[in-house]
Amino acid sequence: MTQTIRVSAAMVAIGDELLSGRTQDKNIAQLARFLNVKGIDLAEVRIVADDTDAIVEAVNILRTRNDYLFTSGGIGPTHDDITTAAIAQAFGVKVITHETAFSMLAAHYQSRQMEFTPARQKMAQTPENAILIPNDVSVAPGFIMQNVYVLAGVPAVFNAMILAVEPQLKGGTILLSASVDCPYGEGTIGDELTVIAKRHPLVSIGSYPRFHEQAYSTQIVMRSHTQDALDLAQKDVEMMLNRLHDDESK
Amino acid sequence: MTQTIRVSAAMVAIGDELLSGRTQDKNIAQLARFLNVKGIDLAEVRIVADDTDAIVEAVNILRTRNDYLFTSGGIGPTHDDITTAAIAQAFGVKVITHETAFSMLAAHYQSRQMEFTPARQKMAQTPENAILIPNDVSVAPGFIMQNVYVLAGVPAVFNAMILAVEPQLKGGTILLSASVDCPYGEGTIGDELTVIAKRHPLVSIGSYPRFHEQAYSTQIVMRSHTQDALDLAQKDVEMMLNRLHDDESK
Repeated sequence: MTQTIRVSAAMVAIGDELLSGRTQDKNIAQLARFLNVKGIDLAEVRIVADDTDAIVEAVNILRTRNDYLFTSGGIGPTHDDITTAAIAQAFGVKVITHETAFSMLAAHYQSRQMEFTPARQKMAQTPENAILIPNDVSVAPGFIMQNVYVLAGVPAVFNAMILAVEPQLKGGTILLSASVDCPYGEGTIGDELTVIAKRHPLVSIGSYPRFHEQAYSTQIVMRSHTQDALDLAQKDVEMMLNRLHDDESK
Repeated sequence: MTQTIRVSAAMVAIGDELLSGRTQDKNIAQLARFLNVKGIDLAEVRIVADDTDAIVEAVNILRTRNDYLFTSGGIGPTHDDITTAAIAQAFGVKVITHETAFSMLAAHYQSRQMEFTPARQKMAQTPENAILIPNDVSVAPGFIMQNVYVLAGVPAVFNAMILAVEPQLKGGTILLSASVDCPYGEGTIGDELTVIAKRHPLVSIGSYPRFHEQAYSTQIVMRSHTQDALDLAQKDVEMMLNRLHDDESK
């Protein structure tokens, strides 16, 4: 029997715009899919405002509870970008100008004949002892503090930073999944699905209703760390659906 | 001078599917926009798994911190719908079969000549002393426990329930907003925007970068409880942009 390795992560998405409805977040689902493939369990996500206390609280709780914590947003050049200072406060360290980041940004703006303004210099700041995360989209780096990965909020940049740190993340046992589309509502299959779920303790069975044209259908998603267990659960679910279909045809 | 009334809310979005990347949540932005119009400040959102302890923890913290708490998901008929039981546990009360909900669902399924299965009967359960939230899309109700509004996860049903409770929510002073599209990146405007933000303490100024075709542009969003303050800030931002434009034309 192989051992299951559980690696967990959390995310803090930072930004007033996510809480005012101005912006539909895209980074949460993006990170979720990425971690899923790595066998890392995304255990919790919090969306908080551009508010230092809120960021510090969420970061300090979630970084101690999980193997990894990812944040998005608030590391740009403007006055409302307060994530770097908040992360420094969460770790009880100072904000410094990171020399490598500073040289990199200085060279970038020089090559484009753009002024390296104080606002742009702000993007070279990190908490003390941070490790830079490269940004091959727009140069300004993210950074790592212990198990906390501080990433940009712009989805294309967030994604580039995720890919940049990917090789150093320790993955866990990958959760295998199978799904079955079911033309019946949850009310029709619920009782039997409860029995099937009990019969397959190594499989987590989720049931996701869709409501379309005044009718419900359901997607049944099974997840397990072992292929055999997954196959057996899937067989049971398909048998249930075949029987329901036969009953209807009578 | 008129008084500003602050009303705050939080949300707990419940479901493994939101954390695995299977589902892109739509209810958070939907609720955010709705609350914004009501003058209710959405202060924090948490996304948690189908896990009783995680739900209880998030609900108990957020309901005491805010005027309102909204939850989405986990009140359907299947074994993985555990929100009702978790809310009851959070309030230290029993789960009961709500008689009105039971009669309503019984009548609904009878009228459609569908069996009122135990799974469907589960949707008539609420914590003790809950008040029902009608569901004019698919009948099965949500419920209210004190300041906690427990809503369905299917976006169309979530929306119907929000509209159903709307009249009883006490709104706050509406946050007025104005936005200016800016063809410059944040690095170009960041320093001056910091000065403008300091000059307008009654206005919260957010700066949102867009990255498109290898170039950054920025949307500047100003928010305030008073129109005069908002207008003055907007004038300052527009003057900055006009000057930047003139500088370029030189």
